[in-house]
Amino acid sequence: MSVAVTMAPAAPTAEEEAQLARLYADFERHHLMPLWTQTNDLMPLTPKPKAVPHVWAWKDLYPLAQRSGELVPVGRGGERRAIGLANPGLGGHAYVSPTLWAAIQYLGPRETAPEHRHSQNAFRFVVEGEGVWTVVNGDPVRMSRGDFLLTPGWNFHGHHNVTDHPMAWIDGLDIPFAQQMDVGFFEFGSERVTDAATPAFSRGERLWCHPGLRPLSGLRDTVSSPIGAYRWEVTDRALTEQLLLEEEGQPATVAPGHAAVRYVNPTTGGDVMPTIRAEFHRLRPGTVTQTRREVGSSVFQVFEGRGVVTLDGGETSLETGDLFVVPSWCAWSLAAEGSFDLFRFSDAPIMERLSFARTQVEGGDR
Amino acid sequence: MSVAVTMAPAAPTAEEEAQLARLYADFERHHLMPLWTQTNDLMPLTPKPKAVPHVWAWKDLYPLAQRSGELVPVGRGGERRAIGLANPGLGGHAYVSPTLWAAIQYLGPRETAPEHRHSQNAFRFVVEGEGVWTVVNGDPVRMSRGDFLLTPGWNFHGHHNVTDHPMAWIDGLDIPFAQQMDVGFFEFGSERVTDAATPAFSRGERLWCHPGLRPLSGLRDTVSSPIGAYRWEVTDRALTEQLLLEEEGQPATVAPGHAAVRYVNPTTGGDVMPTIRAEFHRLRPGTVTQTRREVGSSVFQVFEGRGVVTLDGGETSLETGDLFVVPSWCAWSLAAEGSFDLFRFSDAPIMERLSFARTQVEGGDR
Amino acid sequence: MSVAVTMAPAAPTAEEEAQLARLYADFERHHLMPLWTQTNDLMPLTPKPKAVPHVWAWKDLYPLAQRSGELVPVGRGGERRAIGLANPGLGGHAYVSPTLWAAIQYLGPRETAPEHRHSQNAFRFVVEGEGVWTVVNGDPVRMSRGDFLLTPGWNFHGHHNVTDHPMAWIDGLDIPFAQQMDVGFFEFGSERVTDAATPAFSRGERLWCHPGLRPLSGLRDTVSSPIGAYRWEVTDRALTEQLLLEEEGQPATVAPGHAAVRYVNPTTGGDVMPTIRAEFHRLRPGTVTQTRREVGSSVFQVFEGRGVVTLDGGETSLETGDLFVVPSWCAWSLAAEGSFDLFRFSDAPIMERLSFARTQVEGGDR
Amino acid sequence: MSVAVTMAPAAPTAEEEAQLARLYADFERHHLMPLWTQTNDLMPLTPKPKAVPHVWAWKDLYPLAQRSGELVPVGRGGERRAIGLANPGLGGHAYVSPTLWAAIQYLGPRETAPEHRHSQNAFRFVVEGEGVWTVVNGDPVRMSRGDFLLTPGWNFHGHHNVTDHPMAWIDGLDIPFAQQMDVGFFEFGSERVTDAATPAFSRGERLWCHPGLRPLSGLRDTVSSPIGAYRWEVTDRALTEQLLLEEEGQPATVAPGHAAVRYVNPTTGGDVMPTIRAEFHRLRPGTVTQTRREVGSSVFQVFEGRGVVTLDGGETSLETGDLFVVPSWCAWSLAAEGSFDLFRFSDAPIMERLSFARTQVEGGDR
Repeated sequence: MSVAVTMAPAAPTAEEEAQLARLYADFERHHLMPLWTQTNDLMPLTPKPKAVPHVWAWKDLYPLAQRSGELVPVGRGGERRAIGLANPGLGGHAYVSPTLWAAIQYLGPRETAPEHRHSQNAFRFVVEGEGVWTVVNGDPVRMSRGDFLLTPGWNFHGHHNVTDHPMAWIDGLDIPFAQQMDVGFFEFGSERVTDAATPAFSRGERLWCHPGLRPLSGLRDTVSSPIGAYRWEVTDRALTEQLLLEEEGQPATVAPGHAAVRYVNPTTGGDVMPTIRAEFHRLRPGTVTQTRREVGSSVFQVFEGRGVVTLDGGETSLETGDLFVVPSWCAWSLAAEGSFDLFRFSDAPIMERLSFARTQVEGGDR
Repeated sequence: MSVAVTMAPAAPTAEEEAQLARLYADFERHHLMPLWTQTNDLMPLTPKPKAVPHVWAWKDLYPLAQRSGELVPVGRGGERRAIGLANPGLGGHAYVSPTLWAAIQYLGPRETAPEHRHSQNAFRFVVEGEGVWTVVNGDPVRMSRGDFLLTPGWNFHGHHNVTDHPMAWIDGLDIPFAQQMDVGFFEFGSERVTDAATPAFSRGERLWCHPGLRPLSGLRDTVSSPIGAYRWEVTDRALTEQLLLEEEGQPATVAPGHAAVRYVNPTTGGDVMPTIRAEFHRLRPGTVTQTRREVGSSVFQVFEGRGVVTLDGGETSLETGDLFVVPSWCAWSLAAEGSFDLFRFSDAPIMERLSFARTQVEGGDR
Repeated sequence: MSVAVTMAPAAPTAEEEAQLARLYADFERHHLMPLWTQTNDLMPLTPKPKAVPHVWAWKDLYPLAQRSGELVPVGRGGERRAIGLANPGLGGHAYVSPTLWAAIQYLGPRETAPEHRHSQNAFRFVVEGEGVWTVVNGDPVRMSRGDFLLTPGWNFHGHHNVTDHPMAWIDGLDIPFAQQMDVGFFEFGSERVTDAATPAFSRGERLWCHPGLRPLSGLRDTVSSPIGAYRWEVTDRALTEQLLLEEEGQPATVAPGHAAVRYVNPTTGGDVMPTIRAEFHRLRPGTVTQTRREVGSSVFQVFEGRGVVTLDGGETSLETGDLFVVPSWCAWSLAAEGSFDLFRFSDAPIMERLSFARTQVEGGDR
Repeated sequence: MSVAVTMAPAAPTAEEEAQLARLYADFERHHLMPLWTQTNDLMPLTPKPKAVPHVWAWKDLYPLAQRSGELVPVGRGGERRAIGLANPGLGGHAYVSPTLWAAIQYLGPRETAPEHRHSQNAFRFVVEGEGVWTVVNGDPVRMSRGDFLLTPGWNFHGHHNVTDHPMAWIDGLDIPFAQQMDVGFFEFGSERVTDAATPAFSRGERLWCHPGLRPLSGLRDTVSSPIGAYRWEVTDRALTEQLLLEEEGQPATVAPGHAAVRYVNPTTGGDVMPTIRAEFHRLRPGTVTQTRREVGSSVFQVFEGRGVVTLDGGETSLETGDLFVVPSWCAWSLAAEGSFDLFRFSDAPIMERLSFARTQVEGGDR
């Protein structure tokens, strides 16, 4: 139901109608718009997103990226060979949700995506493959399967493929938010990556990836995480331990059969970037999550395993690489067939920092 | 200059062109969109708002509100007789900027705007008149000239005019932000105000408006200010003292000849609401402010006096009641002819909490 | 009961006793001390303060201060004519508790207490009289009955009496904490006050004492409050309003018949200084507070009215000016005969910031 | 120089002296003490600790602990076979500084130190040995060489030695602070450890020791770190990487040749406990640190290597296991002969949270 329904002055006379028409014309001339004639849902009872729930199959996405690799060069100007997931409800924009951008990026053998920087916060998640190093503010970061990689706002970054095979991965950014809110700055950098070394671990990892330890050279808190790469081995081990602890009868999982971690900024314990939350979820075979609605939008990618997602009542089977978007206040739940691993990112930090966050869980609000 | 210019594969053959066409058709079919063909400014070098700077004259606005008062009833459904300032660059929406809503609201003699509540944060600012009480969560709040009045998100509120003369004021909300981000909830309340008393001071003021004192019954910090009304007498006194202190050679003003206060939440010292900042500025006659660009948008209303605003180089003369919007990264400055009092509100808390805030001041960044 | 009782090796032989004696002698020689022979309460079951509850009568204190005024000069070296309340349990120190210093300070006609600054945080509370200005970092602050006045750590301050009659007030500081923790620095300043003006309101008040307003020239949060004087008129009005609201059936008081405010730093909403909390309490005639134990120590001074304090079961009648100390975990309650106004200060910020705070209220913990 | 020197009324007459004597007697009778006769340094120009810098040699300490193991049983009552380092300046107390307790604790083969809990925050650091598990709130934590182990305030903990050889380690607590401030509570627990398992890794580690990852079951920030054991392997690797990065010309060390990490609470990035900071420092051979004074006290233990400490100008050679205390504002520096590894703990969180922290570094304040 809509709040801003047209107000009905009871049976207006012809003279009244003429006066109203003149009034509305004068409004328009003066760049005004009355609240009471707005037929769209300006203030709905619950969020009514234009964005719709949608699933993209990896088996469709990846071949299209390959064909792009053959037909479209990468270089200065277009900057990136990235193909954005365009939410069917947000016609005409490559926005997966009103806040988030999700794309598959594809880099052919020996190719380089030139360096630049922008206000928009970005990350990469690698569902398969290896061979590319992303260079973030001069620090070369290996990209391998299962890794979650950060390029927070205003950090220079470029990618280069040092192998003879192509590589694809997922990019996530806050481009739609930045564009609609008019907050974006952009600067071109080097056409080649500024450090062509290919170390196994980036300098950020070597300085920061020691659990519970903080370098005395890094005591000032940072807006975004100083860790450039969250490695799959670490994520996998954390999830494995949670499930083992659960088997031992210890509190560790977020719900029975459901292990989950959030990627965090070690200087604060909070989200990795000011606008984007990222998590990894693992469900035991047979686990079904509670149905949940949240303010704000999320994107999931299946990393491994098979299962089913239910989005506002509609079920879709999922397999490795498949992506889906959950718009604001859309009811969602997951069911695992085998073991089921999913990467998730969302705009939750925006909602929490601005106090708009709400969650409704089957059987009660949280 | 745009970053995402079309990439030009040098002299494609007819076969290549056909392949590209097939690729793009396949993209569309699968709800994908390549980054490299987006001709719009997806990632501009600096913010390129669709919103434009614009001035609305009070002498146009107020008569239109009066005519609405005669022709359009107020009541359940349309809820409010509010006329939104529609930024000419945001065609089709009553958005003064991508985040903010500004409207003139008009309540005839003895009329009531029924109670409701919504996630959207709202305030009122009274440029002239009196006679209406706004009832916020059951607390009746007098509305008088120069007062700044809060109805933070999810507080029930309704207004009623207890006099025989009409009253108009300015509403400010984060409706555009809430609508685009899909965060809004709405709930209808009582058709009449739940407390028809007309006290000079609201209970919130009586509990909270004692400088430097906090009630022991209110030690928990609140997301939004517990003060329902910031009275003109207090604002005026604060600005007067700043200018007197300046005359005595003491640091007090924000710049020479420029007194200014921010309305704050006394439980935190921070902004009154999570998405909206509100301030009051007073310029001595002849004062000219530095030219400034800021990320995020602002709306000003002249409260008293005369002056000139320069917006991206274009000058407009202003008098009491005139409103203007400053879109993101628009260069602005003010020049006072006589003493010049202005109310300002903006989305700065959004920009600061999400780390997108930037300011460029003539002669150097801040 | 004590934890660290001597451990008793069952029936030691003479040889064993000799060995133990040699061991203990070796401990001493090497500056070591075994935990198991410590007969004092190193780790008691609940706090066992050396400080004891105690009441000082104003009718004793004030004449002694007067006699000091006749016999002892004030000036550089001794710096202040202050007489400290010495807790009978803390023999040999002018400590009212392990953290707090409380003293009566007396300034004769036309006398000056020279300027200096120190790390220790200080305040004054005026139970009667007027005529002295305290000059804090060059800002002259009038001292009048009922005022609470701040001189936070490392601010220069001196006092001068501009009248022909003497004046006395209460000083509160964190001297015992600073001395035991070895945190204190001290610096001499001007022998005369640096600004001899006697304005009704200090510059800090003129800039900061406008409820809900923050100067744009003061947007950086400060460790201690920028308000130099919390005036009695304001405190009285806040308490009066709480009791009126209570009569109207509104939530406002901290408990039935018990109005109370905390003095706060307007830049944060938190305590006025990092180590000292200050509050003002007003009880309606006949009100009896719940019995309460708290970690940390407090000092109260009766500002007006009559009542009874119960400290660990012992009752004492109180009248205007009387002071009493509540050591850590001492059970206390107040009973008002007529209307009963009390100023309170405590070390609660220390306890809260270091997570040692605990409160036990008759009928349940809080 | 002392501030509170006795004030000298110039040439008092006999009558005046008699009056003064009566005044002072009356002060004493009423539990008052004048500021102006206090000859001790109540407010010194810089901190003047009673605690003195002091070094304890491991070659003295360890044999004394062994002899205690033979002569003194451990069990309920004395609770722990711990021998406290008694600062020579704090006569009569086993306080290494006014805030900190440091002790060597010794547990014989198959012995158990029974479970208890207290408000005091505690940790263990293991300079050599293994074979003991400390059980913290039911979670068994292995203790091995180089490990830093937490038992934050009000967590039950007991230790048991599962081997046939004894083990010793260092305990650090805030006992002196807790005792002087009267904040301590204590509760006896099980006489035997509540979980006799001897896992290689505790449950806290398995849940929390994954760099940059936070369990979704642990999103609420905790006052103290949820990590029970910070393992030597991790600390060593972090320090090694810092020195390697330095060799590669990258910013990583806190000063040339000086690697250092702080142990932190992963939920906040801040100190592990509210009152105690812990760090590990590694100096390259030949490195000499800047001379530094700090408000607050520190204790160091040499973990490995040889070097020299200079404390207020006095030099002492150090080897593995040696401990020294740096009182507040004592000038200290370290010089490494070979590679030089030191564990450090301090009361810095107290000083920072209460805004008393100051540091003076050779060549300028910080």
